[in-house]
Amino acid sequence: MAYEPKRLGGETIYRNEVFQTGLMSQLLDGIYDGEMTVGELLGHGNFGVGTFNGLDGEMIVLDGNCYQMRHDGSIEPASLDQQTPFAVVMNFVPTIRRGLPNNIIRKSAAQVLDDFTVSKNYMYAVKIVGDFEWVRTRTVQKQEKPYPKMVEATENDEVVQFDKVRGTIVGFRTPIYEQGIGVPGCHAHFIDDEHEKGGHVIDFKLDNAYVEICIGTNLNLHLPLTEAFSEADLSPEDLAEQISRAEKHA
Amino acid sequence: MAYEPKRLGGETIYRNEVFQTGLMSQLLDGIYDGEMTVGELLGHGNFGVGTFNGLDGEMIVLDGNCYQMRHDGSIEPASLDQQTPFAVVMNFVPTIRRGLPNNIIRKSAAQVLDDFTVSKNYMYAVKIVGDFEWVRTRTVQKQEKPYPKMVEATENDEVVQFDKVRGTIVGFRTPIYEQGIGVPGCHAHFIDDEHEKGGHVIDFKLDNAYVEICIGTNLNLHLPLTEAFSEADLSPEDLAEQISRAEKHA
Repeated sequence: MAYEPKRLGGETIYRNEVFQTGLMSQLLDGIYDGEMTVGELLGHGNFGVGTFNGLDGEMIVLDGNCYQMRHDGSIEPASLDQQTPFAVVMNFVPTIRRGLPNNIIRKSAAQVLDDFTVSKNYMYAVKIVGDFEWVRTRTVQKQEKPYPKMVEATENDEVVQFDKVRGTIVGFRTPIYEQGIGVPGCHAHFIDDEHEKGGHVIDFKLDNAYVEICIGTNLNLHLPLTEAFSEADLSPEDLAEQISRAEKHA
Repeated sequence: MAYEPKRLGGETIYRNEVFQTGLMSQLLDGIYDGEMTVGELLGHGNFGVGTFNGLDGEMIVLDGNCYQMRHDGSIEPASLDQQTPFAVVMNFVPTIRRGLPNNIIRKSAAQVLDDFTVSKNYMYAVKIVGDFEWVRTRTVQKQEKPYPKMVEATENDEVVQFDKVRGTIVGFRTPIYEQGIGVPGCHAHFIDDEHEKGGHVIDFKLDNAYVEICIGTNLNLHLPLTEAFSEADLSPEDLAEQISRAEKHA
């Protein structure tokens, strides 16, 4: 039977899969070592975010290239045999491309993006490209064993501001029903055009930018097969609060 | 690179995928029509549970055959072009096969099963085969539009008891972190050997039975592309309570 796209809210929707290795709740519990290589991860998507084993910096995957943005401010291409405990990627096929209002900050941009999408019940990969008045980021720091929980590990990460910068935000908008699995709401990383600055996005102010959006209709979740993951506490009572603190949303 | 199985808790684990179409939270919100056919579903697994469009009875998939167990007590092979709003299936490869103590009920059996598995952080398909002292089931009833929410739709389903019966329980054990997506804990359907009796399992007492278990290390989640799903409220505040009431666990 031939594949039939669906019509939703006046738009034609084709299926596309979001791939995720690891769980956000696992990071919160201090399980920072996975068993998936960057090479394997890139086979599932050319666009995405994540971190590296040991919580050694922020991962950004853009146009099929994977970069490691470390706590010391360095940015380097990741090698294909590095490993990740948590990453979300997809084959980025933009179906929506729109200009964004100038001078809006992250919170307003999120509202504008919601108006561009057919429903809050699907996943979306979001790419914002252009000039930013400023971008505030933070970058996780490599942890030593025994690993502290993520709220503690990220407690002292300072927020760094980049002014008048041109670059790309790579992010996902995730439904609330994925609370125990991912990061509900928006989760985004930034890298500048020279690949010299970047990190986990706390807030930004747009100058002149556009957005591309790719809908995720399927989730492919890959659980780490490690002793530490198998023993983790993945359902703490204060899960939502821990995510909010560790992700430090503005 | 060759595929390498992992060692966990002294066992060798191979990856295997649980496939799910639709969300439990979607059923709770009264979204009973999906757009996946039984034929497509069976391409993702030969073992599983679910329901049919309109909430027209309980689905059980066993040895690659899909049966429809209706509210009137009838059981028939489902046709491949019927559709489902929610189903969970997998390619059942038993890696554990153990006898079960006689005379235990569902709650005790669940505890015994937990001891057989390496970790509560993975998914498990569970097949219990043999003689039952009794099995208590209920079967959802076809709903008419406008659909009521599931708690209301299932409120008056009576519990039917089958005594001294030989058959198979098909179920899944799902981690709590999948709360918004599936049915945390055990979710099981029963069918007797003659394919004449069955339904959604409320409780049972074993007489002489064994269990086979298949680990799920990956989740492939397929979201329905329908207007009703796109507009559903999938994150009610009392989600856990609604699941418990609709599933009527003993």
